[in-house]
Amino acid sequence: MGKVCIEGVGKFYHHYPRVAVVVTARVGEKANAMAAAWHSSLSRKPPLYGVAISPKRFTHALILEAGEFGVNFLPFDRAGIIAAVGGSTGREVDKFEAFKIAEEKPVLTSVPILAEAYAAYECKLVGHHAFGDHTWFVGEIVMVHLVEGAVTDKGVLDLSAVKPAMYLGADRYVTALRESLSYLDRKAWTRE
Amino acid sequence: MGKVCIEGVGKFYHHYPRVAVVVTARVGEKANAMAAAWHSSLSRKPPLYGVAISPKRFTHALILEAGEFGVNFLPFDRAGIIAAVGGSTGREVDKFEAFKIAEEKPVLTSVPILAEAYAAYECKLVGHHAFGDHTWFVGEIVMVHLVEGAVTDKGVLDLSAVKPAMYLGADRYVTALRESLSYLDRKAWTRE
Repeated sequence: MGKVCIEGVGKFYHHYPRVAVVVTARVGEKANAMAAAWHSSLSRKPPLYGVAISPKRFTHALILEAGEFGVNFLPFDRAGIIAAVGGSTGREVDKFEAFKIAEEKPVLTSVPILAEAYAAYECKLVGHHAFGDHTWFVGEIVMVHLVEGAVTDKGVLDLSAVKPAMYLGADRYVTALRESLSYLDRKAWTRE
Repeated sequence: MGKVCIEGVGKFYHHYPRVAVVVTARVGEKANAMAAAWHSSLSRKPPLYGVAISPKRFTHALILEAGEFGVNFLPFDRAGIIAAVGGSTGREVDKFEAFKIAEEKPVLTSVPILAEAYAAYECKLVGHHAFGDHTWFVGEIVMVHLVEGAVTDKGVLDLSAVKPAMYLGADRYVTALRESLSYLDRKAWTRE
Protein backbone atom coordinates (compact mmCIF):
# COMPACT_ATOMS: atom_id res chain seq x y z
CA MET A 1 0.00 0.00 0.00
CA GLY A 2 1.22 3.48 -0.78
CA LYS A 3 1.14 6.42 1.53
CA VAL A 4 -0.35 9.84 1.20
CA CYS A 5 0.93 13.05 2.78
CA ILE A 6 -1.75 15.44 3.99
CA GLU A 7 -1.62 18.93 5.44
CA GLY A 8 -4.34 19.27 8.06
CA VAL A 9 -5.51 16.54 10.39
CA GLY A 10 -9.04 16.11 9.08
CA LYS A 11 -11.11 14.13 11.58
CA PHE A 12 -7.97 13.78 13.72
CA TYR A 13 -8.67 10.11 14.50
CA HIS A 14 -5.39 8.57 13.20
CA HIS A 15 -4.06 8.28 16.72
CA TYR A 16 -7.14 6.44 18.04
CA PRO A 17 -8.29 4.10 19.59
CA ARG A 18 -7.96 5.76 22.97
CA VAL A 19 -9.39 4.72 26.31
CA ALA A 20 -12.43 6.98 26.73
CA VAL A 21 -12.84 8.41 30.21
CA VAL A 22 -15.59 10.21 32.06
CA VAL A 23 -14.26 13.40 33.64
CA THR A 24 -16.24 14.62 36.64
CA ALA A 25 -16.36 17.71 38.82
CA ARG A 26 -18.56 19.11 41.55
CA VAL A 27 -19.14 22.57 42.99
CA GLY A 28 -21.64 22.55 45.84
CA GLU A 29 -24.88 21.04 44.50
CA LYS A 30 -23.71 21.19 40.90
CA ALA A 31 -22.02 18.10 39.57
CA ASN A 32 -21.25 17.10 36.03
CA ALA A 33 -19.73 14.34 33.94
CA MET A 34 -18.30 14.57 30.43
CA ALA A 35 -16.61 12.23 27.97
CA ALA A 36 -12.95 12.76 27.10
CA ALA A 37 -10.53 10.90 24.86
CA TRP A 38 -7.69 13.44 25.00
CA HIS A 39 -5.87 12.64 28.21
CA SER A 40 -2.51 11.30 29.36
CA SER A 41 -0.36 10.55 32.33
CA LEU A 42 2.37 13.19 32.64
CA SER A 43 4.59 12.29 35.57
CA ARG A 44 5.12 9.43 37.97
CA LYS A 45 6.63 11.42 40.87
CA PRO A 46 4.47 13.26 41.65
CA PRO A 47 1.69 11.35 39.84
CA LEU A 48 0.23 13.88 37.39
CA TYR A 49 -2.56 13.39 34.87
CA GLY A 50 -3.65 15.74 32.09
CA VAL A 51 -7.03 16.14 30.39
CA ALA A 52 -7.83 18.40 27.41
CA ILE A 53 -11.21 20.13 27.73
CA SER A 54 -12.75 22.77 25.51
CA PRO A 55 -13.61 26.05 27.27
CA LYS A 56 -17.12 25.59 25.81
CA ARG A 57 -17.80 22.66 28.14
CA PHE A 58 -19.77 23.13 31.33
CA THR A 59 -17.23 20.95 33.13
CA HIS A 60 -14.46 23.42 32.22
CA ALA A 61 -15.82 26.10 34.55
CA LEU A 62 -16.64 23.55 37.25
CA ILE A 63 -13.05 22.27 37.34
CA LEU A 64 -11.64 25.79 37.54
CA GLU A 65 -13.98 26.63 40.41
CA ALA A 66 -13.63 23.34 42.26
CA GLY A 67 -9.86 23.04 41.80
CA GLU A 68 -10.23 19.29 41.35
CA PHE A 69 -11.50 16.71 38.89
CA GLY A 70 -12.17 13.00 38.63
CA VAL A 71 -11.11 10.61 35.86
CA ASN A 72 -13.31 7.51 35.57
CA PHE A 73 -12.54 4.41 33.50
CA LEU A 74 -15.59 2.44 32.40
CA PRO A 75 -15.81 -1.07 31.01
CA PHE A 76 -16.75 -1.63 27.39
CA ASP A 77 -20.24 -2.85 28.26
CA ARG A 78 -20.88 0.52 29.91
CA ALA A 79 -19.62 2.60 26.97
CA GLY A 80 -23.20 3.80 26.60
CA ILE A 81 -22.64 5.97 29.68
CA ILE A 82 -19.68 7.60 27.92
CA ALA A 83 -21.82 8.19 24.81
CA ALA A 84 -24.66 9.61 26.89
CA VAL A 85 -22.56 12.09 28.87
CA GLY A 86 -20.76 12.98 25.64
CA GLY A 87 -24.02 13.78 23.86
CA SER A 88 -25.58 16.08 26.44
CA THR A 89 -24.64 19.16 28.41
CA GLY A 90 -24.71 19.72 32.15
CA ARG A 91 -26.13 23.16 31.51
CA GLU A 92 -29.41 21.53 30.51
CA VAL A 93 -29.62 18.23 32.35
CA ASP A 94 -28.45 16.60 35.52
CA LYS A 95 -26.66 13.75 33.79
CA PHE A 96 -26.37 11.63 36.92
CA GLU A 97 -30.15 11.66 37.24
CA ALA A 98 -31.00 11.55 33.53
CA PHE A 99 -28.76 8.57 32.81
CA LYS A 100 -29.12 6.88 36.21
CA ILE A 101 -25.40 7.06 36.90
CA ALA A 102 -24.64 5.72 40.36
CA GLU A 103 -21.99 7.47 42.41
CA GLU A 104 -19.60 6.35 45.07
CA LYS A 105 -18.02 8.54 47.72
CA PRO A 106 -14.70 10.15 46.93
CA VAL A 107 -12.08 9.98 49.67
CA LEU A 108 -9.92 13.11 49.52
CA THR A 109 -11.90 15.36 47.16
CA SER A 110 -15.55 16.02 46.31
CA VAL A 111 -15.39 14.75 42.72
CA PRO A 112 -18.06 12.22 41.64
CA ILE A 113 -16.70 8.68 41.39
CA LEU A 114 -18.73 6.44 39.09
CA ALA A 115 -19.85 3.21 40.74
CA GLU A 116 -19.48 1.34 37.45
CA ALA A 117 -15.88 2.45 36.86
CA TYR A 118 -13.25 -0.27 37.17
CA ALA A 119 -10.72 2.43 38.03
CA ALA A 120 -10.92 6.11 38.92
CA TYR A 121 -8.55 8.91 39.87
CA GLU A 122 -9.26 11.75 42.27
CA CYS A 123 -7.14 14.68 41.08
CA LYS A 124 -6.26 18.01 42.68
CA LEU A 125 -5.77 20.67 40.04
CA VAL A 126 -2.17 21.88 39.95
CA GLY A 127 -2.25 23.87 36.71
CA HIS A 128 -4.12 24.68 33.52
CA HIS A 129 -2.69 25.69 30.18
CA ALA A 130 -4.32 27.01 27.02
CA PHE A 131 -3.08 24.83 24.14
CA GLY A 132 -4.93 25.93 21.01
CA ASP A 133 -8.69 25.47 21.26
CA HIS A 134 -8.59 23.35 24.45
CA THR A 135 -7.40 23.82 28.01
CA TRP A 136 -4.98 21.24 29.35
CA PHE A 137 -5.90 20.60 32.98
CA VAL A 138 -3.09 19.07 35.02
CA GLY A 139 -4.04 17.30 38.22
CA GLU A 140 -2.15 15.44 40.88
CA ILE A 141 -3.67 12.02 41.53
CA VAL A 142 -4.33 11.88 45.25
CA MET A 143 -6.45 8.72 45.33
CA VAL A 144 -6.92 5.70 43.08
CA HIS A 145 -10.14 3.67 43.16
CA LEU A 146 -9.72 0.20 41.73
CA VAL A 147 -12.00 -2.80 41.40
CA GLU A 148 -10.48 -5.81 43.12
CA GLY A 149 -9.01 -8.20 40.58
CA ALA A 150 -8.79 -5.54 37.86
CA VAL A 151 -5.02 -5.81 37.56
CA THR A 152 -2.61 -8.74 37.53
CA ASP A 153 0.41 -9.10 39.81
CA LYS A 154 2.37 -7.20 37.13
CA GLY A 155 0.05 -4.23 37.64
CA VAL A 156 -1.46 -4.42 34.14
CA LEU A 157 -5.17 -4.73 33.44
CA ASP A 158 -6.39 -8.32 33.61
CA LEU A 159 -8.24 -8.42 30.30
CA SER A 160 -10.16 -11.51 31.36
CA ALA A 161 -11.64 -9.48 34.22
CA VAL A 162 -11.83 -5.99 32.68
CA LYS A 163 -12.65 -4.97 29.12
CA PRO A 164 -11.64 -1.32 28.70
CA ALA A 165 -13.86 1.00 26.66
CA MET A 166 -11.85 2.61 23.87
CA TYR A 167 -13.03 5.32 21.51
CA LEU A 168 -12.25 4.89 17.83
CA GLY A 169 -13.85 8.16 16.71
CA ALA A 170 -17.19 8.98 15.06
CA ASP A 171 -19.22 7.46 17.93
CA ARG A 172 -17.50 4.09 17.54
CA TYR A 173 -16.09 2.08 20.42
CA VAL A 174 -13.88 -1.00 20.61
CA THR A 175 -12.18 -3.02 23.28
CA ALA A 176 -8.84 -4.82 23.44
CA LEU A 177 -8.34 -8.29 22.02
CA ARG A 178 -7.23 -10.43 24.95
CA GLU A 179 -6.06 -13.19 22.63
CA SER A 180 -3.58 -10.75 21.05
CA LEU A 181 -1.73 -10.20 24.34
CA SER A 182 1.99 -10.42 23.59
CA TYR A 183 5.02 -10.13 25.83
CA LEU A 184 7.93 -8.40 24.11
CA ASP A 185 10.94 -8.11 26.39
CA ARG A 186 12.46 -4.77 25.45
CA LYS A 187 15.95 -5.91 26.44
CA ALA A 188 15.80 -9.13 24.45
CA TRP A 189 14.04 -7.94 21.33
CA THR A 190 16.09 -7.77 18.18
CA ARG A 191 15.00 -7.74 14.58
CA GLU A 192 14.72 -11.28 13.26
CA MET B 1 -16.42 -7.21 43.14
CA GLY B 2 -15.47 -4.70 45.77
CA LYS B 3 -13.22 -1.72 45.27
CA VAL B 4 -10.07 -0.64 46.99
CA CYS B 5 -8.88 2.93 47.49
CA ILE B 6 -5.13 3.43 47.16
CA GLU B 7 -2.88 6.43 47.72
CA GLY B 8 -0.07 6.30 45.17
CA VAL B 9 -0.36 5.08 41.61
CA GLY B 10 1.91 2.05 41.86
CA LYS B 11 2.78 0.81 38.37
CA PHE B 12 0.50 3.54 36.96
CA TYR B 13 -0.97 1.21 34.34
CA HIS B 14 -4.69 1.53 35.28
CA HIS B 15 -5.25 3.90 32.38
CA TYR B 16 -3.71 1.59 29.79
CA PRO B 17 -3.91 0.20 27.10
CA ARG B 18 -2.57 3.13 25.13
CA VAL B 19 -1.47 3.28 21.52
CA ALA B 20 2.33 3.10 21.73
CA VAL B 21 4.15 5.49 19.43
CA VAL B 22 7.71 5.91 18.25
CA VAL B 23 8.87 9.49 18.75
CA THR B 24 11.69 10.58 16.46
CA ALA B 25 14.03 13.54 16.13
CA ARG B 26 17.08 14.48 14.10
CA VAL B 27 19.86 17.02 14.51
CA GLY B 28 22.31 16.93 11.63
CA GLU B 29 23.69 13.38 11.42
CA LYS B 30 22.23 12.38 14.75
CA ALA B 31 18.80 10.78 14.65
CA ASN B 32 16.97 8.84 17.29
CA ALA B 33 13.76 6.98 17.96
CA MET B 34 12.13 6.21 21.30
CA ALA B 35 8.97 4.53 22.53
CA ALA B 36 6.26 6.61 24.21
CA ALA B 37 2.85 5.77 25.62
CA TRP B 38 2.17 9.12 27.31
CA HIS B 39 0.85 11.31 24.51
CA SER B 40 -2.35 13.05 23.48
CA SER B 41 -3.94 15.36 20.98
CA LEU B 42 -4.44 18.78 22.55
CA SER B 43 -6.18 21.01 20.01
CA ARG B 44 -7.87 20.72 16.65
CA LYS B 45 -7.31 24.31 15.46
CA PRO B 46 -4.39 24.57 15.33
CA PRO B 47 -3.68 20.82 15.39
CA LEU B 48 -1.48 20.31 18.45
CA TYR B 49 -0.06 17.08 19.84
CA GLY B 50 1.68 16.52 23.18
CA VAL B 51 4.26 13.91 24.20
CA ALA B 52 5.69 13.36 27.70
CA ILE B 53 9.43 12.60 27.67
CA SER B 54 11.80 12.23 30.60
CA PRO B 55 14.75 14.66 30.59
CA LYS B 56 16.96 11.56 30.94
CA ARG B 57 16.18 10.47 27.38
CA PHE B 58 18.57 11.18 24.54
CA THR B 59 15.60 12.22 22.41
CA HIS B 60 14.74 14.96 24.93
CA ALA B 61 17.83 17.00 24.05
CA LEU B 62 17.43 16.25 20.33
CA ILE B 63 13.90 17.65 20.26
CA LEU B 64 14.92 20.79 22.12
CA GLU B 65 17.78 21.35 19.68
CA ALA B 66 15.87 20.43 16.52
CA GLY B 67 12.67 22.25 17.46
CA GLU B 68 10.63 19.46 15.89
CA PHE B 69 9.64 15.85 16.46
CA GLY B 70 7.91 12.99 14.70
CA VAL B 71 5.14 10.73 16.04
CA ASN B 72 4.95 7.33 14.35
CA PHE B 73 2.12 4.82 14.69
CA LEU B 74 3.13 1.20 14.09
CA PRO B 75 0.95 -1.82 13.46
CA PHE B 76 0.69 -4.56 16.09
CA ASP B 77 2.85 -6.97 14.10
CA ARG B 78 5.66 -4.40 14.26
CA ALA B 79 5.38 -3.82 18.02
CA GLY B 80 8.84 -5.39 18.27
CA ILE B 81 10.26 -2.15 16.87
CA ILE B 82 8.60 -0.25 19.71
CA ALA B 83 10.04 -2.71 22.24
CA ALA B 84 13.49 -2.46 20.66
CA VAL B 85 13.70 1.33 20.61
CA GLY B 86 12.23 1.34 24.12
CA GLY B 87 14.93 -0.98 25.43
CA SER B 88 18.01 0.83 24.11
CA THR B 89 19.46 4.31 24.16
CA GLY B 90 20.53 6.48 21.25
CA ARG B 91 23.58 7.49 23.26
CA GLU B 92 24.99 4.01 22.68
CA VAL B 93 23.50 2.73 19.44
CA ASP B 94 22.20 3.98 16.13
CA LYS B 95 18.79 2.39 16.53
CA PHE B 96 17.87 2.79 12.87
CA GLU B 97 20.90 0.72 11.91
CA ALA B 98 20.83 -1.71 14.84
CA PHE B 99 17.18 -2.62 14.37
CA LYS B 100 17.05 -2.18 10.59
CA ILE B 101 14.38 0.49 10.78
CA ALA B 102 13.60 1.83 7.32
CA GLU B 103 12.96 5.55 6.94
CA GLU B 104 10.91 7.61 4.56
CA LYS B 105 11.48 11.22 3.71
CA PRO B 106 9.69 13.83 5.80
CA VAL B 107 8.04 16.67 3.85
CA LEU B 108 8.19 19.83 5.95
CA THR B 109 10.66 18.89 8.70
CA SER B 110 13.75 16.71 9.08
CA VAL B 111 12.20 14.19 11.52
CA PRO B 112 12.59 10.49 10.68
CA ILE B 113 9.37 8.95 9.37
CA LEU B 114 9.20 5.18 9.84
CA ALA B 115 8.44 3.30 6.62
CA GLU B 116 6.44 0.70 8.54
CA ALA B 117 4.19 3.24 10.26
CA TYR B 118 0.56 3.27 9.12
CA ALA B 119 0.36 6.91 10.21
CA ALA B 120 2.87 9.54 11.25
CA TYR B 121 2.85 13.20 12.27
CA GLU B 122 5.55 15.75 11.53
CA CYS B 123 5.44 18.28 14.39
CA LYS B 124 7.02 21.68 14.87
CA LEU B 125 7.74 22.32 18.52
CA VAL B 126 5.63 25.18 19.87
CA GLY B 127 6.29 24.77 23.57
CA HIS B 128 7.65 22.57 26.33
CA HIS B 129 6.51 22.39 29.93
CA ALA B 130 8.00 20.67 32.98
CA PHE B 131 5.22 18.62 34.56
CA GLY B 132 6.73 16.63 37.43
CA ASP B 133 9.44 14.22 36.29
CA HIS B 134 8.68 14.54 32.55
CA THR B 135 8.69 17.31 29.97
CA TRP B 136 5.50 17.81 28.00
CA PHE B 137 6.50 18.67 24.43
CA VAL B 138 3.77 20.40 22.46
CA GLY B 139 4.03 20.32 18.69
CA GLU B 140 1.93 21.62 15.84
CA ILE B 141 1.21 18.89 13.33
CA VAL B 142 2.32 20.27 9.98
CA MET B 143 2.11 17.06 7.94
CA VAL B 144 0.25 13.75 8.24
CA HIS B 145 1.58 10.59 6.59
CA LEU B 146 -1.10 7.95 6.14
CA VAL B 147 -1.17 4.54 4.50
CA GLU B 148 -3.84 4.43 1.83
CA GLY B 149 -6.87 2.51 3.05
CA ALA B 150 -5.93 2.98 6.73
CA VAL B 151 -9.11 4.91 7.53
CA THR B 152 -12.74 4.49 6.54
CA ASP B 153 -14.90 7.19 4.97
CA LYS B 154 -15.79 8.22 8.55
CA GLY B 155 -12.12 8.96 9.18
CA VAL B 156 -11.69 6.19 11.77
CA LEU B 157 -9.11 3.41 11.53
CA ASP B 158 -10.26 0.52 9.38
CA LEU B 159 -9.48 -2.29 11.80
CA SER B 160 -9.63 -4.85 9.01
CA ALA B 161 -6.72 -3.02 7.32
CA VAL B 162 -4.78 -1.72 10.33
CA LYS B 163 -4.20 -3.34 13.71
CA PRO B 164 -2.87 -0.66 16.07
CA ALA B 165 -0.12 -1.55 18.56
CA MET B 166 -1.25 -0.73 22.08
CA TYR B 167 0.85 -0.92 25.21
CA LEU B 168 -0.71 -2.55 28.27
CA GLY B 169 2.31 -2.01 30.55
CA ALA B 170 5.13 -4.30 31.74
CA ASP B 171 6.32 -5.05 28.19
CA ARG B 172 2.88 -6.33 27.15
CA TYR B 173 1.12 -5.30 23.95
CA VAL B 174 -2.42 -5.83 22.67
CA THR B 175 -4.46 -4.75 19.70
CA ALA B 176 -8.11 -3.80 19.29
CA LEU B 177 -10.84 -6.40 18.85
CA ARG B 178 -12.44 -5.61 15.51
CA GLU B 179 -15.43 -7.81 16.31
CA SER B 180 -16.19 -5.59 19.30
CA LEU B 181 -16.71 -2.50 17.14
CA SER B 182 -19.90 -0.79 18.34
CA TYR B 183 -21.68 2.31 17.14
CA LEU B 184 -23.23 4.28 20.01
CA ASP B 185 -25.00 7.40 18.76
CA ARG B 186 -24.36 9.93 21.51
CA LYS B 187 -27.57 11.79 20.75
CA ALA B 188 -29.73 8.69 20.79
CA TRP B 189 -28.22 6.82 23.68
CA THR B 190 -30.33 6.53 26.82
CA ARG B 191 -30.10 4.11 29.71
CA GLU B 192 -32.18 1.01 28.97
